[in-house]
Amino acid sequence: MSRTRDGVETVRVELGERGYPIHIGAGVLGRGDLLRPHLRGRQVAIVSNEVVAPLYLETLRQAIGEGRQVDVFLMADGERHKNLETYGALMDFLLEHRHNRTTTLVALGGGVVGDLTGFAAATFQRGVDFVQVPTTLLAQVDSSVGGKTAVNHPRGKNMIGAFYQPRCVLADTTVFDTLPDREYRAGLAEVVKYGVIRDAAFFDWLETRAGALGARDAGALARAVRRSCEIKAEVVAADEREGGLRAILNYGHTFGHAIETLTGYERYLHGEAVAIGMVMAADLSVRQGWLPAGEAGRIRALLETLGLPVTPPALAGDAMVAAMGLDKKVLDGRLRLVLAEALGRVIVTEDVDAQALGRTLAAGEALCRG
Amino acid sequence: MSRTRDGVETVRVELGERGYPIHIGAGVLGRGDLLRPHLRGRQVAIVSNEVVAPLYLETLRQAIGEGRQVDVFLMADGERHKNLETYGALMDFLLEHRHNRTTTLVALGGGVVGDLTGFAAATFQRGVDFVQVPTTLLAQVDSSVGGKTAVNHPRGKNMIGAFYQPRCVLADTTVFDTLPDREYRAGLAEVVKYGVIRDAAFFDWLETRAGALGARDAGALARAVRRSCEIKAEVVAADEREGGLRAILNYGHTFGHAIETLTGYERYLHGEAVAIGMVMAADLSVRQGWLPAGEAGRIRALLETLGLPVTPPALAGDAMVAAMGLDKKVLDGRLRLVLAEALGRVIVTEDVDAQALGRTLAAGEALCRG
Repeated sequence: MSRTRDGVETVRVELGERGYPIHIGAGVLGRGDLLRPHLRGRQVAIVSNEVVAPLYLETLRQAIGEGRQVDVFLMADGERHKNLETYGALMDFLLEHRHNRTTTLVALGGGVVGDLTGFAAATFQRGVDFVQVPTTLLAQVDSSVGGKTAVNHPRGKNMIGAFYQPRCVLADTTVFDTLPDREYRAGLAEVVKYGVIRDAAFFDWLETRAGALGARDAGALARAVRRSCEIKAEVVAADEREGGLRAILNYGHTFGHAIETLTGYERYLHGEAVAIGMVMAADLSVRQGWLPAGEAGRIRALLETLGLPVTPPALAGDAMVAAMGLDKKVLDGRLRLVLAEALGRVIVTEDVDAQALGRTLAAGEALCRG
Repeated sequence: MSRTRDGVETVRVELGERGYPIHIGAGVLGRGDLLRPHLRGRQVAIVSNEVVAPLYLETLRQAIGEGRQVDVFLMADGERHKNLETYGALMDFLLEHRHNRTTTLVALGGGVVGDLTGFAAATFQRGVDFVQVPTTLLAQVDSSVGGKTAVNHPRGKNMIGAFYQPRCVLADTTVFDTLPDREYRAGLAEVVKYGVIRDAAFFDWLETRAGALGARDAGALARAVRRSCEIKAEVVAADEREGGLRAILNYGHTFGHAIETLTGYERYLHGEAVAIGMVMAADLSVRQGWLPAGEAGRIRALLETLGLPVTPPALAGDAMVAAMGLDKKVLDGRLRLVLAEALGRVIVTEDVDAQALGRTLAAGEALCRG
């Protein structure tokens, strides 16, 4: 599934004619030889934000090289700008600059830039090429694999979007040097998730290398990103449009999204909410009698070692249940959760014991009354 | 490719797991047995407009039957409402009524309703099911086959959209009874197009049945709709995303779109502009030495017999060239046209003689100079 050449690791996402490579390594952002083969036409539109562009735009421009029309659309930084308004402004921009069907959109930034750019690429003139250059750990291991693109609606995150695959992904492991510590650690939560859902040996390895990862060791990081992308690529290849297996990627996310919703998306970064959500899902798995308590303890301990929050905030249990019910994973009113059976093995189930769920939620509830 | 059963003709669009049936016949709009198998979840959102809903909404509701949440979104009538604003309002509506991923959107109306609803279905929660119930001849033979969905942008028609296939199409041939004469005849232009691009025998048949078609003879119409859908389905099955063959469906459209643009989308219905565009494309084909003049004459004569305009309006030739250059069919600055080699056979070419094109445009130019 992956190969190493020239210091660059390449994971291939196998989706037939929609398949694409993820190039991982130090300096791939500036590698024109990896990027240019994916630029089909004469036009390129780089989408980035005011924080990321000053750091990497020039390097990316040089990788694109001469002889192409390159236009740059800068959006404001932050999840709240991932909306239909910014999307409309990007459409205006592309048409004002007369981009046609052979243009390529390049997303230079984190998940917000990637999701919005991908949705724009999916829908500009019924679909144009796009390339992802993710500049956060979370974007490299999560949103850059799998083709989920979207913008938010006031009534919910990612409510408007499409499944649309990039032509290639350039995951440069040197970009983490400029990531704020909290954002970096939030990305590690998703890395841990891949171990929990699919690969016990990877989870073991993460435990032994937690210190190196916390210290942003380049070698440990390249391996963590590669293995995360491989696991996600495997799952997505088996289920591109989330009909079955792909749901396991939501481990910790139903709890996590509910926490984000109830705290107004201000208190926690996405990865932090997911870390708490994974601990809650593990707790419920133990209460259902499916997961040994020791394994739930290891999940909690690893996340804590990596500097992530693991204790639910003070929130009423019934508010949590209501917020979980608004999540997209609810089918026809039934709550579906991803729960663990062992490290490396999870299941998607509607068989959730109401009392057990109540007890899992009671930790935050108790703080609430506290 | 098609079968007849129970008075209903069914054309299947062969696109693998995205394939779907088009049911054609009198009264299929009210046939719950054809519709209900395609309603996967408990929720249905009917999208229609203020003109069509009073005529057919109740029949459609009855076909859906009891036991489902059915919400109705009515948009204003007309192409200028096929925009991001109406799209945003539909997204708001779906979320306010808490539609989830298992909902089905049903488009009840002409091409405007179908295109907008299809784009909404393609992008609501990254894609939900949709069903087309086209109520104009044009929508039945054109926009209901092939998965093109879109909204307009001030800088161009259909600039924002996606390729997205419906679950099924119900093409009721009795709906033409309520179509205004001009709109009905505009739809016949696209029917003629299918003969020109792909089926000389069908073109011959249209010539012999022109009177019956003009008089809205039910039998002639059912056959015309069926054969049109079959031809479009064949072309789309061979080239879903417009990489090659599918471009032949644009015969007459590059000229036609330029005429629509320069006359502000007010003077001609789409089918009328396409009728003139087909005559211009045939004229250019003759001038390039590819099409016998007699065959171009037959195209013009059939369109005229069907009550369609065939003479270009008074427009400056250079304005036409500029407007044609804005068309989506331009790749990297080169003008591609679909020209005829014979009745039933066209080619997509960039080999357009500038002088010949100038002479074809001169007819309108001459009127322009008065």
